[in-house]
Amino acid sequence: MNKFGSQLLDEAVDQFATLPGVGRRTALRLALHMLGRDGVDVERFSNAFLNLKSGIRYCPECNMISDDGVCPICSDARRDHSVICVVESLRDVFSIENTGQYNGLYHILGGIISPMEGIGPSDLPIQELVARISAGGVKEVVLALSTGIEGETTSFFIYKQIASLPVEVTSIARGVGFGDDLEYTDELTLGRSMQMRQPFKP
Amino acid sequence: MNKFGSQLLDEAVDQFATLPGVGRRTALRLALHMLGRDGVDVERFSNAFLNLKSGIRYCPECNMISDDGVCPICSDARRDHSVICVVESLRDVFSIENTGQYNGLYHILGGIISPMEGIGPSDLPIQELVARISAGGVKEVVLALSTGIEGETTSFFIYKQIASLPVEVTSIARGVGFGDDLEYTDELTLGRSMQMRQPFKP
Repeated sequence: MNKFGSQLLDEAVDQFATLPGVGRRTALRLALHMLGRDGVDVERFSNAFLNLKSGIRYCPECNMISDDGVCPICSDARRDHSVICVVESLRDVFSIENTGQYNGLYHILGGIISPMEGIGPSDLPIQELVARISAGGVKEVVLALSTGIEGETTSFFIYKQIASLPVEVTSIARGVGFGDDLEYTDELTLGRSMQMRQPFKP
Repeated sequence: MNKFGSQLLDEAVDQFATLPGVGRRTALRLALHMLGRDGVDVERFSNAFLNLKSGIRYCPECNMISDDGVCPICSDARRDHSVICVVESLRDVFSIENTGQYNGLYHILGGIISPMEGIGPSDLPIQELVARISAGGVKEVVLALSTGIEGETTSFFIYKQIASLPVEVTSIARGVGFGDDLEYTDELTLGRSMQMRQPFKP
């Protein structure tokens, strides 16, 4: 006997369990939920991912996802086209956009330099970034990559590539998070936040 | 601009968000995960639900899901065919099976009597249960429906239908859960567990 008495259900459970953060128990719950839904609903559910995968395009400028041509951010005339924020992934763009504190453009690398995973500088669209800057009109490049060894290696590599260009290179501020207790902040973050202390503005 | 710069991504996020317990934030995370997977993987994922919905069959005996004909439980000669446990849903079967404490058959109602949702006794396969008992060989029917008004109404209705048949009708034990503190047990459960107290077996 199959685990749940049906290979079709087993497969549905297996597939839900491939999602990050979804265990077998939740996968079963979701599969049973699917079983109880209308056929039309299930078709729409399944087709969403097939269409996403087959239809998605990327912005030729910044590598942001885009259904067609240049993405809505790059084509938004109200945004500041003189600032480019370099991020690792699409998710980072959404995170930054959610803050409402940034009005420039992005450059999505789609990864970071990682010898372990065989990702070298040439696998990332760094020359494309250089080309965007060389085309003129860019005053600042904000590096917003992660702080691990790989992220810092990537930041440093990019910095070396663009240091000679007439553009200011900045990095997002690091420090103790708002609302975080010093007690529970890791030493590295707390140490850096001491080093990078700033004039108090009451 | 669409929420995420792509209608395809929006739709994928929307569809993940239709799952129980999945909020917008998780839905976005899952949709981005999908975007990063191989096309073949995504096809297999989507097809699992399409196939589940179009291909699933139900056991003519107990209404358990079954890919083909009588389900693995009903067709298992090692199980005790003289006991039938009446449950509301497939999920309840899995829960009971997981305990490893039951070796009989099931009868899945697929719902309970609910005037609010327009589900009457005739919408549930209760006559099918009567028929199974009347066919002979059944010694005990275990009622394992939920304890709300609707569940108890359903249990009572079934009891009335089968009380005249030569079968013992039992109900799963209710009481304070193992490991639960009396302090945090609801009054009804604690009250019932006092009423139904049993000889102490050390």
